[in-house]
Amino acid sequence: MLQIQALEKLVHELSKLPGIGPKTAQRLAYHILRSPRNYSESLAQSLIRVQDEVHTCPTCFNYTDVEVCRYCADSSRNQDLICIVEEPSDIVRIESSGVFRGRYHVLHGAISPLEGIEPRNLKIQELLNRLNQDSNIKEIILALDADLEGDTTVLYLTKLLSDKNVKISRIAHGVPIGSDIDYIDDRTMGRALENRVEL
Amino acid sequence: MLQIQALEKLVHELSKLPGIGPKTAQRLAYHILRSPRNYSESLAQSLIRVQDEVHTCPTCFNYTDVEVCRYCADSSRNQDLICIVEEPSDIVRIESSGVFRGRYHVLHGAISPLEGIEPRNLKIQELLNRLNQDSNIKEIILALDADLEGDTTVLYLTKLLSDKNVKISRIAHGVPIGSDIDYIDDRTMGRALENRVEL
Repeated sequence: MLQIQALEKLVHELSKLPGIGPKTAQRLAYHILRSPRNYSESLAQSLIRVQDEVHTCPTCFNYTDVEVCRYCADSSRNQDLICIVEEPSDIVRIESSGVFRGRYHVLHGAISPLEGIEPRNLKIQELLNRLNQDSNIKEIILALDADLEGDTTVLYLTKLLSDKNVKISRIAHGVPIGSDIDYIDDRTMGRALENRVEL
Repeated sequence: MLQIQALEKLVHELSKLPGIGPKTAQRLAYHILRSPRNYSESLAQSLIRVQDEVHTCPTCFNYTDVEVCRYCADSSRNQDLICIVEEPSDIVRIESSGVFRGRYHVLHGAISPLEGIEPRNLKIQELLNRLNQDSNIKEIILALDADLEGDTTVLYLTKLLSDKNVKISRIAHGVPIGSDIDYIDDRTMGRALENRVEL
């Protein structure tokens, strides 16, 4: 459509990104073309650099640019407690709440039969190995998404870990702080009522 | 915040793109990290390639990867008629209407005192040179944006070109095809009434 191969190729690559359709990709490509040459270069360089320098932590599978990630390396953090998340980006979210001071384990996804993601595609065997090797771990918090895949994974892990000597909990689901009761959907409200907290 | 320098750098570079805030940039960066390595590489490569291969046409200042752009080089197109646009992406829009068969001239912006964009920052001198050298040109269509900058540029060009022996017109503004009269803003409706077409 644009008749310029290099530009079409860039639009094609950009439109593979999540949430970037062909129209947005075209707008971004034109913006990049208009920008000074060193912008393209430094973006290109940081794309390569991120792949070169960032890898997963051998213990918790969070992203890190050092040997062991800073949460696993931080001896001031609670060694008893592991929070299980789907993606490394979830850790950023949990950390910024300032409430959790344990360590993490990243599954890199959730069980999804529809998308062909089975337990063996996730870091679940690695979690079992970790539990076997590290006798400090006393409690596991499941902080998985509140969707079908998250629920399936919670069920699977709860069953799998039932014979281990660890306490298992799941983060609470309910009405978000600051929201108007009027606008809460039925399932959230149902969950908030079921999981009511005694005062 | 992410504590991984290479990742923060990528987020920083991505968030310079239009419409990409820090949150979206972070989501994109994590997606890139999750993608196979060759995706990063081919995106990086296409960023460099677009800067290497794409330049502006010496006649009309559209983007091209050959010496003279395909619209200027196409002898089957009407040589009498030039359509003036702000950006190369506008040409794609006009071409896909299938109505225009003349050639183009890209200003690369519009006059904007607020942003410090003056006539000398645009390809206006180049337009004058082109008119002086090419006696085929009989008509100029101004297809500039329907905003303050577009209007200012239209006024400026109309005055500047008044002593040239060319017909000047501007694309029509009015109610878009398929839209409901109820939802049209006042200024568009005003313009549609003023520019009514006799039947």
